[in-house]
Amino acid sequence: MSDPKILATFPNPAPGRDYLIEHTHHEFTSLCPLTGHPDFATITVRYVADKQCVELKSLKLYFHAYRNAGAFFEAVTNQICDELGTALRPRALTVVADWKARGGFTSRITAEWQPARRKR
Amino acid sequence: MSDPKILATFPNPAPGRDYLIEHTHHEFTSLCPLTGHPDFATITVRYVADKQCVELKSLKLYFHAYRNAGAFFEAVTNQICDELGTALRPRALTVVADWKARGGFTSRITAEWQPARRKR
Amino acid sequence: MSDPKILATFPNPAPGRDYLIEHTHHEFTSLCPLTGHPDFATITVRYVADKQCVELKSLKLYFHAYRNAGAFFEAVTNQICDELGTALRPRALTVVADWKARGGFTSRITAEWQPARRKR
Amino acid sequence: MSDPKILATFPNPAPGRDYLIEHTHHEFTSLCPLTGHPDFATITVRYVADKQCVELKSLKLYFHAYRNAGAFFEAVTNQICDELGTALRPRALTVVADWKARGGFTSRITAEWQPARRKR
Amino acid sequence: MSDPKILATFPNPAPGRDYLIEHTHHEFTSLCPLTGHPDFATITVRYVADKQCVELKSLKLYFHAYRNAGAFFEAVTNQICDELGTALRPRALTVVADWKARGGFTSRITAEWQPARRKR
Amino acid sequence: MSDPKILATFPNPAPGRDYLIEHTHHEFTSLCPLTGHPDFATITVRYVADKQCVELKSLKLYFHAYRNAGAFFEAVTNQICDELGTALRPRALTVVADWKARGGFTSRITAEWQPARRKR
Amino acid sequence: MSDPKILATFPNPAPGRDYLIEHTHHEFTSLCPLTGHPDFATITVRYVADKQCVELKSLKLYFHAYRNAGAFFEAVTNQICDELGTALRPRALTVVADWKARGGFTSRITAEWQPARRKR
Amino acid sequence: MSDPKILATFPNPAPGRDYLIEHTHHEFTSLCPLTGHPDFATITVRYVADKQCVELKSLKLYFHAYRNAGAFFEAVTNQICDELGTALRPRALTVVADWKARGGFTSRITAEWQPARRKR
Amino acid sequence: MSDPKILATFPNPAPGRDYLIEHTHHEFTSLCPLTGHPDFATITVRYVADKQCVELKSLKLYFHAYRNAGAFFEAVTNQICDELGTALRPRALTVVADWKARGGFTSRITAEWQPARRKR
Amino acid sequence: MSDPKILATFPNPAPGRDYLIEHTHHEFTSLCPLTGHPDFATITVRYVADKQCVELKSLKLYFHAYRNAGAFFEAVTNQICDELGTALRPRALTVVADWKARGGFTSRITAEWQPARRKR
Repeated sequence: MSDPKILATFPNPAPGRDYLIEHTHHEFTSLCPLTGHPDFATITVRYVADKQCVELKSLKLYFHAYRNAGAFFEAVTNQICDELGTALRPRALTVVADWKARGGFTSRITAEWQPARRKR
Repeated sequence: MSDPKILATFPNPAPGRDYLIEHTHHEFTSLCPLTGHPDFATITVRYVADKQCVELKSLKLYFHAYRNAGAFFEAVTNQICDELGTALRPRALTVVADWKARGGFTSRITAEWQPARRKR
Repeated sequence: MSDPKILATFPNPAPGRDYLIEHTHHEFTSLCPLTGHPDFATITVRYVADKQCVELKSLKLYFHAYRNAGAFFEAVTNQICDELGTALRPRALTVVADWKARGGFTSRITAEWQPARRKR
Repeated sequence: MSDPKILATFPNPAPGRDYLIEHTHHEFTSLCPLTGHPDFATITVRYVADKQCVELKSLKLYFHAYRNAGAFFEAVTNQICDELGTALRPRALTVVADWKARGGFTSRITAEWQPARRKR
Repeated sequence: MSDPKILATFPNPAPGRDYLIEHTHHEFTSLCPLTGHPDFATITVRYVADKQCVELKSLKLYFHAYRNAGAFFEAVTNQICDELGTALRPRALTVVADWKARGGFTSRITAEWQPARRKR
Repeated sequence: MSDPKILATFPNPAPGRDYLIEHTHHEFTSLCPLTGHPDFATITVRYVADKQCVELKSLKLYFHAYRNAGAFFEAVTNQICDELGTALRPRALTVVADWKARGGFTSRITAEWQPARRKR
Repeated sequence: MSDPKILATFPNPAPGRDYLIEHTHHEFTSLCPLTGHPDFATITVRYVADKQCVELKSLKLYFHAYRNAGAFFEAVTNQICDELGTALRPRALTVVADWKARGGFTSRITAEWQPARRKR
Repeated sequence: MSDPKILATFPNPAPGRDYLIEHTHHEFTSLCPLTGHPDFATITVRYVADKQCVELKSLKLYFHAYRNAGAFFEAVTNQICDELGTALRPRALTVVADWKARGGFTSRITAEWQPARRKR
Repeated sequence: MSDPKILATFPNPAPGRDYLIEHTHHEFTSLCPLTGHPDFATITVRYVADKQCVELKSLKLYFHAYRNAGAFFEAVTNQICDELGTALRPRALTVVADWKARGGFTSRITAEWQPARRKR
Repeated sequence: MSDPKILATFPNPAPGRDYLIEHTHHEFTSLCPLTGHPDFATITVRYVADKQCVELKSLKLYFHAYRNAGAFFEAVTNQICDELGTALRPRALTVVADWKARGGFTSRITAEWQPARRKR
């Protein structure tokens, strides 16, 4: 299973400026929890850092940990969003997961992190 | 004919967040009601789930049921929008149908679902 | 010359919803009124239907009628916009004409129809 | 040198409507004033005509006149914008110049014409 | 190390107009401070000049000075933004750095310059 | 099931010349005999006509007849090759079937027709 | 109807060398003899000149003459090949016609000219 | 580890013809034996069947078995070639593996199977 | 007019090997001798050097000299081929000129140089 | 300067088969010996291994050593070919260097290694 403690950070080199950081991982793969078949996705992490930036190699290892984990598209995208939000406490954060063709479908899930989630 | 009862759902794994789910089906085909000739489309279902998400395999079967049905572009796009809206009761829903070349034309129909439709 | 009476319509199957219909004709051709040389364009008709939708085959025949007509880019785009507006009385209508390379230029004319045109 | 008097116009065929005209010239070339080396650009003229439209062949000749003129990217884009604005007195006008690779750089200059320029 | 004093400027030829200048350098390369491996980026400088424009050849030399410098993605993008802002005092300035694939990731950092940075 | 008797022909207009005719059908669809799921292919018929050419509309109807037929990739490509060879008796004939993504695979089957098949 | 007498020629400037000339016309259009619907093609003329080269503007007018002519794909490609062969008497000549999408098909006809056709 | 016994076959439906079968798997992934990092490849199996064809789903499972196996590019491509050759005894067989970007490199390994390997 | 004396050479650094050198110039422009309109081409020089290689900057200046010269497609391609052959005396030489769109046509002229031309 | 002793090898895992190995490095950069400006290339090494294969990481370091070396296109391509030939003693070897745009030119140098070079 994935483990957010893998995520390492370093101090934001320009904390006085709201600037956009966007890391796109082209090699995400996990398993379908129903069939066990592999799924493939491109995952973009787009955020405005506050005190900490995510270290890129640790982000790669964090994603690699999903390799043999069963993961539904909707659930895993939200989980990544939650875990990165908790680890980085960014000023803003969006996670976009683009899932490759599966049964004639491509899928994109887009989740935005908010420090205090609105209730419904 | 298509049958919305084919559509299966599962509980939204992140109901506390408004996030975007987008499934694009690249293999939709139906028949022209006038000529009987096959039509081909790419159909995108973009929605914000409330309590339920649509299960992807059931969505595929729902689309496959149009294979031998006569369907006008405008009518079938609205029908898919209505039936998905009724089945999912989402917070928001848009259906986009991109019809492949027919007589020198390509066509795109875009319909948005609203819980309580405005009257005119 | 073109003849808007060629345009056939059918009743809007979802009049209770404002949805977008977009037909793109990839095979429009007319003649330059000055040189007699053929011009080629891709023409997109994007509209929100009110009571009537345009029937696609009749739209094709309407466009084919320009084949041997002399037509300036700016004038013919506005004429198509006017004639479709009059025939369909849509809730909204935009016509985009993309003219292929002519003397090192490509051109795009975009006209929007309004039921009651503003005076200047 | 370029000569705006080359620019010919014809009466706007639809003066009662604000519609967009966009001409893109793919074959602009001038000379670097410092090195004498040729530069190449694609230039887009996007405008809303008032009383007059620019005649396309005269626009081509107007651009060809830059072929052996020394021209800095920033200056020539503004000059084209000024001269077209003066010649057409349009309701709106934007000129976009996309300069091809030069020393590992591509450049784009975008200038908007205003009847009465704001002072600073 | 990079040296902003390399940056040469020339007087804005159209100071009475707010127009957009965009220079994209396709050949930026620096070194990873941790591994010493080369990194490659495309860097876009998008600004509205006030009194001075940056001279393109000097911008090229300024970028070349990073060739053997260790540079973290986030830090170097902000440094370029700061140094160009100081050198040009533009009306507006954005720097976008698109880093080529590294370990399965592509990255984009986007920083906007402000004369008086807001404090937090 | 498919029916080669649908295929209509017309006399080769240039029988004195060996020239190449290539028709590519972008809308072939059949069913997987095991799962019943639809498959999609692009099928190219490349031949040198002898006495007869295949009429294009009849070729379309011949392909449409596979719409609800179960068909393995390898078998159906050879069947099309055999039936076209028998119907046209061409000087040469190749059939290429490019099957769209299925379970992470794309497939291409290429069969060549020979009047007198070699024995093994 | 097309008229090969439109074709003008000029003396081959390098008759001592076998070199390849290839003109591709992107704007060929004719009519389907059965339905009257327009067809569109890209036509490539590839030849080794002997004493004469074809003048490009006359080739354009020769192609334009097909605009309102009924023309089957196979017949018209061979006719162009024959008429160009007769007009140019080239050392070698190939005509390739790529017909745009019609009923889900694209087609390519390739004919090669030979001074003395082989009999069968 | 991979297991060639996963490979299922079915009788060649057209054994009297030498025809080409090409299956391209877009989702191959294995691990670098040195670093443990995942590698990704597109693998094409191109063969002329003799008595048996490979069943596509079993080929997929055969490839999936490499997911957590350490595999050097050169060795694994030859291993796949050997195991498919042994399982299918085809008339001809080529395996092409296109490895995605790793450290600034892409790699392609192409191996051809021969019933009786030549000695050196 | 062009002047082959502009062409500078340097000694082939690997005269013991037949290796291929290919320079593609993307910015060739000349004038149509009939209309005076500019033409644009991409010109590829592909050769096997014998004693001398062409110096790239001099090749650029050689091409720039055509900027205001009238030049027919067929003639200028052969002239470049002849002048480069004479200047370099290569083991082999091919010149390919790809002319941009002119009147709906693109053109490619391909000429091969031979030390001793064959007579006819 | 480059140093072929950086090149590490490992034993060919399939020495009984002639198979093709192709490594493409997308991040080669060196300096122009005349101007000191950086050049960029994509370099492909295509070989049939005999006893040894080149280890990919060492090939990367070998290429990185050119980063601050002055290198003419023709000379450096032949040098890479020679040094790899000497290090690997392959059954066959081709090196292709594709140099990015420099002064309006792109260049490709292709050199083939031969154990015993032919004399002239």
